[in-house]
Amino acid sequence: MTAEASDIGLGPGEEFDLIRRVATRLGPSARGLGDDCATVPWPGGVLVLSSDLSIEGVHFQRDWLQPVEIGWRAAAAAMSDLAAAGAQPIGVLAAVGVPGSEAGGGLTEDIMGGVGEVCAAVGAVVLGGDLSRADAITIDVCAVGSADQPVGRGGARPGDSLWLTGRLGGARAALTMWQRHREPQADARSAFARPEPLISAGRWLAAHGAGAMIDVSDGLASDVGHIAARSGVRAIVALDLLPLGPGVDEAAALVGQRPAVFAAAGGEDYQLLVAMPGDFPAAAASTFRADHQLALTEIGRIEQGAGVELLLDGVPQRIAGYDHFG
Amino acid sequence: MTAEASDIGLGPGEEFDLIRRVATRLGPSARGLGDDCATVPWPGGVLVLSSDLSIEGVHFQRDWLQPVEIGWRAAAAAMSDLAAAGAQPIGVLAAVGVPGSEAGGGLTEDIMGGVGEVCAAVGAVVLGGDLSRADAITIDVCAVGSADQPVGRGGARPGDSLWLTGRLGGARAALTMWQRHREPQADARSAFARPEPLISAGRWLAAHGAGAMIDVSDGLASDVGHIAARSGVRAIVALDLLPLGPGVDEAAALVGQRPAVFAAAGGEDYQLLVAMPGDFPAAAASTFRADHQLALTEIGRIEQGAGVELLLDGVPQRIAGYDHFG
Repeated sequence: MTAEASDIGLGPGEEFDLIRRVATRLGPSARGLGDDCATVPWPGGVLVLSSDLSIEGVHFQRDWLQPVEIGWRAAAAAMSDLAAAGAQPIGVLAAVGVPGSEAGGGLTEDIMGGVGEVCAAVGAVVLGGDLSRADAITIDVCAVGSADQPVGRGGARPGDSLWLTGRLGGARAALTMWQRHREPQADARSAFARPEPLISAGRWLAAHGAGAMIDVSDGLASDVGHIAARSGVRAIVALDLLPLGPGVDEAAALVGQRPAVFAAAGGEDYQLLVAMPGDFPAAAASTFRADHQLALTEIGRIEQGAGVELLLDGVPQRIAGYDHFG
Repeated sequence: MTAEASDIGLGPGEEFDLIRRVATRLGPSARGLGDDCATVPWPGGVLVLSSDLSIEGVHFQRDWLQPVEIGWRAAAAAMSDLAAAGAQPIGVLAAVGVPGSEAGGGLTEDIMGGVGEVCAAVGAVVLGGDLSRADAITIDVCAVGSADQPVGRGGARPGDSLWLTGRLGGARAALTMWQRHREPQADARSAFARPEPLISAGRWLAAHGAGAMIDVSDGLASDVGHIAARSGVRAIVALDLLPLGPGVDEAAALVGQRPAVFAAAGGEDYQLLVAMPGDFPAAAASTFRADHQLALTEIGRIEQGAGVELLLDGVPQRIAGYDHFG
């Protein structure tokens, strides 16, 4: 890693070291790597794009998910990045690979059907894609949308408060049960299999002053680190305040972690973590909750400095994030 | 397949039957499937997007290509679709998966380096992507660009002439040699490993009246069928007129085909096949050749009717295309 490599403002982690090395290698032929979304200024708004790759055996096992859920989840992950930018999706391109022996059996259609369902849920369409043979089910979704002024990770300022939508840890709870060959409870399973891209929530938060926003895909501990690194600030999170997702208590007990630590280390809930101005009023948060039928919880604050402090009962915790190379 | 399924205007083939079934399954949640590119009307132009998935063992073998060529080729394939729309690329998102054991060895950086090289060659940038672990090297490139008025496959009219850029069959010649554990000649190898996305050629042809255009990725025989199907016309091609790519004579002899048939069945040369008005002047074709240092050859014509006729010495030929599920 060279000096330039550290400039793209990602938090620590092997996965992010690789992104830093790629950015270094690409040099001037890359632009804006390391953000949730790519942005392209355009007359009448900013184009916002994100790509998300899901591979059987890496991101999911086939016996965990229905094919339609494989498609839903992959497309939701890409659109969740648009949500975190405060963008409105236009549509997606979905590249799908399935084993040749199954190409005639409806597997591709079911996966694409799930992509179509989540598009329909947020007012977007399937614009195109590519179909191929693959030994492992492979789906890459590229979501494209637009925003007047996309929210990035770099605008958190000292004095801002940190807020989280929804609840954390449900997806990891499901994963934990599957890995132990047990059936997760239904709500935890849904958190993993059918995450909702929080498009309207993201747009609302953008319109109400969000300085920095990220979707919690790698784990809160990791993702809050990206906001701190990109914004050049220090983030303090009180884990005691985290709203816990379904199945977290049981799954955390199985792995011997405290529930809040378990939830903070879990990725793929696709909730939004957002730095709002310090004077963001409680009444506005109430309006958000009522309008979106979704929790919005103040979980921390932004200070001068660098790095992240995760406190539980006032005691700093070390928590790794979810690593897609792990 | 239902009645609606046949409406997206693709030529015959199992791979295209699958696209038809997907389009049927998606119904109104899809738009414009079956084209090279997705198009989104936008103030100041039309957004043009294309996605192309490449998987080790399906689209290439690892011992055929350098990692940088794997990246180049995947990105060139996606941008070639933009070339066929007469669009100017803005940038790409590249999702790359490599085996976990190699994530630290520079493989991802080399693949992305190739993506960056081909972007730089056409004035585009790497806008973002996604990195993952995968058992087989996997790369999906989503290219985004713009055009005032994208050229599709549906505008060929009776009386148009069919033209082809460059030469055909070089990529298949390389593939044929590799499959026989022989080393292809250098020019044929380059045709497969480092295809040039013909951006400026596509824009020139669009500006000079192209009614329909496609990049020859599945094989001429197959791709001319898409133009005929979408345009609702009949296409006649004189295979005697095909300019043959490097290594074609030798490779065609190995598989026992006549060189023109070999070339017409080969995919992935990424040359442009275009329907130009019948009065497209020879002088303009000369200008094209001089400006782009690229052949432009009249190889056939468009008539009323349906389907494709491929003639060699005046005798109709049956030629299958390259099937990514084959």
